[in-house]
Amino acid sequence: MPYERPNITELSAYVSGEQPTDGKTIKLNTNENPYPPSPKVLEAIAGVSGELLRKYPPPTAASFRRAAAEVHGVKPENVIATNAGDELLRLALTVFTDPQSDGRGIAVAEPTYSLYRVLAGIHGTPVYAEMLTDAFGLPEGWEGRLAQRPVGIAFVVNPHAPSGRLESIDRLAEVAGALQGRGILLVDEAYVDFAGRSALPLLDAKRGLDNVLILRTLSKGYGLAGLRFGYGLGHAGLIAAMDKARDSFNTDIVAQAAAEAAIRDQAYARSTWDRVIEQRGVMTQALQDRGFVVGRSESNFVLAQVPVGSVPAGEFYGRLKAAGILVRYFDQERLRDKLRITVGTPEQNRALLSAIDLILKPAKV
Amino acid sequence: MPYERPNITELSAYVSGEQPTDGKTIKLNTNENPYPPSPKVLEAIAGVSGELLRKYPPPTAASFRRAAAEVHGVKPENVIATNAGDELLRLALTVFTDPQSDGRGIAVAEPTYSLYRVLAGIHGTPVYAEMLTDAFGLPEGWEGRLAQRPVGIAFVVNPHAPSGRLESIDRLAEVAGALQGRGILLVDEAYVDFAGRSALPLLDAKRGLDNVLILRTLSKGYGLAGLRFGYGLGHAGLIAAMDKARDSFNTDIVAQAAAEAAIRDQAYARSTWDRVIEQRGVMTQALQDRGFVVGRSESNFVLAQVPVGSVPAGEFYGRLKAAGILVRYFDQERLRDKLRITVGTPEQNRALLSAIDLILKPAKV
Repeated sequence: MPYERPNITELSAYVSGEQPTDGKTIKLNTNENPYPPSPKVLEAIAGVSGELLRKYPPPTAASFRRAAAEVHGVKPENVIATNAGDELLRLALTVFTDPQSDGRGIAVAEPTYSLYRVLAGIHGTPVYAEMLTDAFGLPEGWEGRLAQRPVGIAFVVNPHAPSGRLESIDRLAEVAGALQGRGILLVDEAYVDFAGRSALPLLDAKRGLDNVLILRTLSKGYGLAGLRFGYGLGHAGLIAAMDKARDSFNTDIVAQAAAEAAIRDQAYARSTWDRVIEQRGVMTQALQDRGFVVGRSESNFVLAQVPVGSVPAGEFYGRLKAAGILVRYFDQERLRDKLRITVGTPEQNRALLSAIDLILKPAKV
Repeated sequence: MPYERPNITELSAYVSGEQPTDGKTIKLNTNENPYPPSPKVLEAIAGVSGELLRKYPPPTAASFRRAAAEVHGVKPENVIATNAGDELLRLALTVFTDPQSDGRGIAVAEPTYSLYRVLAGIHGTPVYAEMLTDAFGLPEGWEGRLAQRPVGIAFVVNPHAPSGRLESIDRLAEVAGALQGRGILLVDEAYVDFAGRSALPLLDAKRGLDNVLILRTLSKGYGLAGLRFGYGLGHAGLIAAMDKARDSFNTDIVAQAAAEAAIRDQAYARSTWDRVIEQRGVMTQALQDRGFVVGRSESNFVLAQVPVGSVPAGEFYGRLKAAGILVRYFDQERLRDKLRITVGTPEQNRALLSAIDLILKPAKV
């Protein structure tokens, strides 16, 4: 096709985890919450009238933004509502990096969420990539090198995916400080609801940082991956710039109502987080007992290196799939010997361990 | 703020029509369908379970695309589902125009939907603009000039907004032919449900055109402006290119279910179109009787030039607003003496005419 831009022709599109629809597969591959959303979300959805559907929705999701601002102790002008976190990522790239004049690009430390690279490819923006430390920490001296390069956005997913490691707030502040005046730090907190702390304190005026944007999503913590609703938290200037570039009515009336109900029911959401965190501990221990190497995760998944001398990770993935259980395998550097396993319900987790035992047994002989 | 790209700083953001929430205003300003969506849409929305919300949605809205393909007599690979028409416009701009290498831009004939220019501004793509004819037809000899310029997309809203005029299919074929091999023709059929014909025959293989993309939306014809659901119809190559660049899960599970229910209930939708078309005739006549100049509209609005010697259009708009009735006034060339009036229910339309009579009476003295 001669019609699309060369960078689209060359692009390797983002590959998401498999989404079987057989209703039988145990899905531990895409980090969904194992529990459904609050009953209040279903009520809110059922309560949207034909008259509300007929008319354009509130363009900036004002009511949701007020609710999110209350929950996080910020102001509505510090909040932008988006179609899941993915829209926020694209919007930030569109606004804060530049394929034209000065070639401002993005910085990533890999492995990380692979969509960052894909979005940069669509936008036509350079990618300044380095490797994370062996412990999946940010690279030593990264701040200094960021300060030397034309970086519009540094992307840090925290807790990190796919390792689950949580970076310190002070380290994130150093990264933001190195970019201040030239670029922003985007902290992707897709999984933060399962972690011990958020980078939100970076938005405190007393930190003196005006270049931190925090991504949140309802996909994981609120059991709403199907709803595609996320939001950004940041300095009002960053939010206003993105507000100019978003699609005019980017979130719909049903999603706005559902998202507000979800975020207002913190008690329900927290009860699902607590259950996931408890099971994360159970699973980490159970996998370690079976010879897997599992680091400390602050997310709703664990990254597990398969036992040395057992089945290679790619084959392990395939045999679990044959047994009706999907986990995630990444055929890439640093991850080729590991499986990323979403923490499921106790029943799902037990089924996984049984399937693992069946695979390990012959290998142990 | 030093962080956003220069073109975002310079951008004048899109201005949508006013959205009062008082529940009393008669809204004839943003071309919503005066009738709510099919009851089957509400059933579909209420039927979405917590379990469906918890999981990622089908990434390409496969079930909706099959339904749309059946309705239009094309194949699912000729359909892309988007967050309303606006996402399709942005996606097309991202994919088929180029702010970098060759500077491929967009062509528009104005006045037209003002978002085209805004999206080009966000993307950093040149705009090749001409004026429409006095009758709001495409400019004489446009095809020849398009062939001389680096045009990635020519945007034609058809029926035209804000005049309601319908361009002939043969003329559109000539425009597409002039661009073939270099750029695409995007026919924005946001209002086509109220028109006598669609440009869909341009997709017939026997036309030999591989560069026509047709925009459809559920916002107007299906009474679903609140849902933000639209789609594109075109050559499979164009759809595949856009599919690479869209957000990974761009439409949500509730919207997919609602959209499929809406498009499958053609009989209900058609009943609303028929009522709007009938009232369009009534309103055109009634406005002409009062001295307005009103051209033939094939849309769900009319463009009415205020009677010579009466109140200026801008003031007319203000006095209607004071009377609790919103219409649209555009303070720009060719439109400064006109009002764009959405066709409402018979009751809304009678209220508008009464308010107009009160404004015209003193001017007639």
